[in-house]
Amino acid sequence: MPNFASRMDGISGSVIRELFKLMADKEIISFGGGNPAAESFPISTIEEITSEILREKGTAILQYGTTEGYMPLRESYIEHIAQPKGINAKVEEVITTTGSTQGIDLALKVFTNPGDVVLVESPTFLGTLQAMRMYQLKCVPVEMDQEGVNIDDLEEKIKQYNPKLFYCIPTFQNPSGKTLGVERRKQIAKLAETYDIVVLEDDPYCDLRYSGEPVPSIKSFDKSGNVILLNSFSKNISPGLRVGTVLAQPAFIKKMTVAKQSSDTHTSNLTQAIVDSFLRRGLLPGHLKSIIPLYAQRLEAMLSGLDKHFPKGFTFTRPEGGLFVWGELPVNIDMPKLLERATKEAKVAFIPGQYFFVDPQTMGQNTMRFNFSGATVEQIQTGLEKLGALVAQAIN
Amino acid sequence: MPNFASRMDGISGSVIRELFKLMADKEIISFGGGNPAAESFPISTIEEITSEILREKGTAILQYGTTEGYMPLRESYIEHIAQPKGINAKVEEVITTTGSTQGIDLALKVFTNPGDVVLVESPTFLGTLQAMRMYQLKCVPVEMDQEGVNIDDLEEKIKQYNPKLFYCIPTFQNPSGKTLGVERRKQIAKLAETYDIVVLEDDPYCDLRYSGEPVPSIKSFDKSGNVILLNSFSKNISPGLRVGTVLAQPAFIKKMTVAKQSSDTHTSNLTQAIVDSFLRRGLLPGHLKSIIPLYAQRLEAMLSGLDKHFPKGFTFTRPEGGLFVWGELPVNIDMPKLLERATKEAKVAFIPGQYFFVDPQTMGQNTMRFNFSGATVEQIQTGLEKLGALVAQAIN
Repeated sequence: MPNFASRMDGISGSVIRELFKLMADKEIISFGGGNPAAESFPISTIEEITSEILREKGTAILQYGTTEGYMPLRESYIEHIAQPKGINAKVEEVITTTGSTQGIDLALKVFTNPGDVVLVESPTFLGTLQAMRMYQLKCVPVEMDQEGVNIDDLEEKIKQYNPKLFYCIPTFQNPSGKTLGVERRKQIAKLAETYDIVVLEDDPYCDLRYSGEPVPSIKSFDKSGNVILLNSFSKNISPGLRVGTVLAQPAFIKKMTVAKQSSDTHTSNLTQAIVDSFLRRGLLPGHLKSIIPLYAQRLEAMLSGLDKHFPKGFTFTRPEGGLFVWGELPVNIDMPKLLERATKEAKVAFIPGQYFFVDPQTMGQNTMRFNFSGATVEQIQTGLEKLGALVAQAIN
Repeated sequence: MPNFASRMDGISGSVIRELFKLMADKEIISFGGGNPAAESFPISTIEEITSEILREKGTAILQYGTTEGYMPLRESYIEHIAQPKGINAKVEEVITTTGSTQGIDLALKVFTNPGDVVLVESPTFLGTLQAMRMYQLKCVPVEMDQEGVNIDDLEEKIKQYNPKLFYCIPTFQNPSGKTLGVERRKQIAKLAETYDIVVLEDDPYCDLRYSGEPVPSIKSFDKSGNVILLNSFSKNISPGLRVGTVLAQPAFIKKMTVAKQSSDTHTSNLTQAIVDSFLRRGLLPGHLKSIIPLYAQRLEAMLSGLDKHFPKGFTFTRPEGGLFVWGELPVNIDMPKLLERATKEAKVAFIPGQYFFVDPQTMGQNTMRFNFSGATVEQIQTGLEKLGALVAQAIN
């Protein structure tokens, strides 16, 4: 058999897949996923919109489109997403992508050479860690505290490693649920300018806010043009459509467009047009209003369940939105083993936090990620009661 | 501004874009495109199918899917596409992609290291050449004759360069329109086995056959498992949906799945489900039957126009299907300049053939690609009469 490329060495993607196999049992109450609530999808609206699109402009939609994206969506993204967040942008600064995953891929493709250092929040989204490994990058973790990434440590690491870019999820971070405050966001934009590095701001959860006030994106403070903002329609409309956006200076967008030509030519016109119509009809604010109570209830159930059923010494984040709560035990334990017991004995699943660290073998062995969007309030109560008992046993 | 990655060096994607700017004039009769005929899309059927999908399984379709692809489509691809071509496959051998472009990208990502040699037909699809350059590969051209790629030259180059893979479009090739005979296909499958190299068989045009008999795919002769077959729904249903497939041995599919996780997580469930329903309802054969006469007429108009209006010494291919006819002048000329005159003076466009060669500065300077699917019979006649006169001037 022909040899695989070096970039595939040691990349199996299998750890998490094995975890999902443990969770495949239908009886299991899962806090392991990362999906938006199944009840949140605007199915009949999308059906109506899609029929209209095909009737009114079926020929153009079913033909090849442009790599930069469906022009009406690039415009409606600016009007309905960027502007309300205080960002003024031109269409030359926007490219649509096949989900934000592709935005991450294109940024890494366009900016990094094998061996480059990239900085990440620690912990961070494991999909991005895998992508960075496949680009043969050296991922250096930046410390986080209760308010998110530590700016002093970030500047220290920038000086020490001369990194190509810093990747962050500033709002309702995956996996920690933490949101970075305004001052730190300004400081990050400033660091991008001072040290001339790219900041890749991944912001898929920002619309899922259940309490508190919105925080401006890092991009809104970007004077150097070095900040790339990724938005996604996966969490606020539907992930199955696979539509995201990249907002960055035109020189970046041009290179990403060339890279996207060879990645998938363009994103599906049909799914782009569905998102565009949803935005243009002004449906997003009302839709969010209608789905947020469900998420808020589930988050509340999770926080009170963790308060009630988890042992002393266990701490956790109290996010104002997003999909995840992050827990820390006072001691390291064999977390994958706990997961196995939890799924087999208690029929409850979560994700061991270590997989969200640069080195899962040595980092985060006392951490757990809980998703609250995929279970009902009753399931959350039952599941946490059982899981709390196992955690208490494990640390004693 | 931060530096871009080395892989982006010298890759502008702009040559062809500049050409398309020349062709933007609405009055221009264009033989420059590569799009399926606008009249060929089954718009109302897709509208009906989409409504049914959203009504019957909207929640699953709008939720995240699996990276390997929408399971019903992987099954219906096997039953309705692979089996009728004489290939027996299991679902573990199939992954769906965001168009065949992504299949090419994943194969290059999974198998090649920078500096590796890859073999290509000469000429070949320029999108693949650009992708190969972005992977920093050394593209070595293999000679073609009237029946397609020359097998002796292929084996010679394999021995000489020890390449990682050979990329080919065996049926109604882009740009040449040539179709490789059965014997050569068997020989290629055998070479893949003998020399343990990957053969990437890109077969998007196979369903667009207007005369003659279907030829089995190289994959159908594959005993080593080294042949990867890419099929696409862009030419037989709609390119705007962005759905393609990869058929290969499970070990290859597994690696490509890991690579796709970081590329776009998965292809849109909605567009995959549309293609799946189209296949399951058994609509593809009837649809092809209904659109082929249109293509056949246009091809015929092009061939007779080239016969009638082009000067002595000009030769061209007579394809039995696909989208392209390939022309060769008896002498090299400044083909980009001819294109400029053609678009300005005669309001006709084509693509200079040199861009389909590994080195456009030194190769194919006497060649032209003509697309016949985007113009009416009348436009083809008028356009070729004008263009033929310019070509006659240019070679005299």
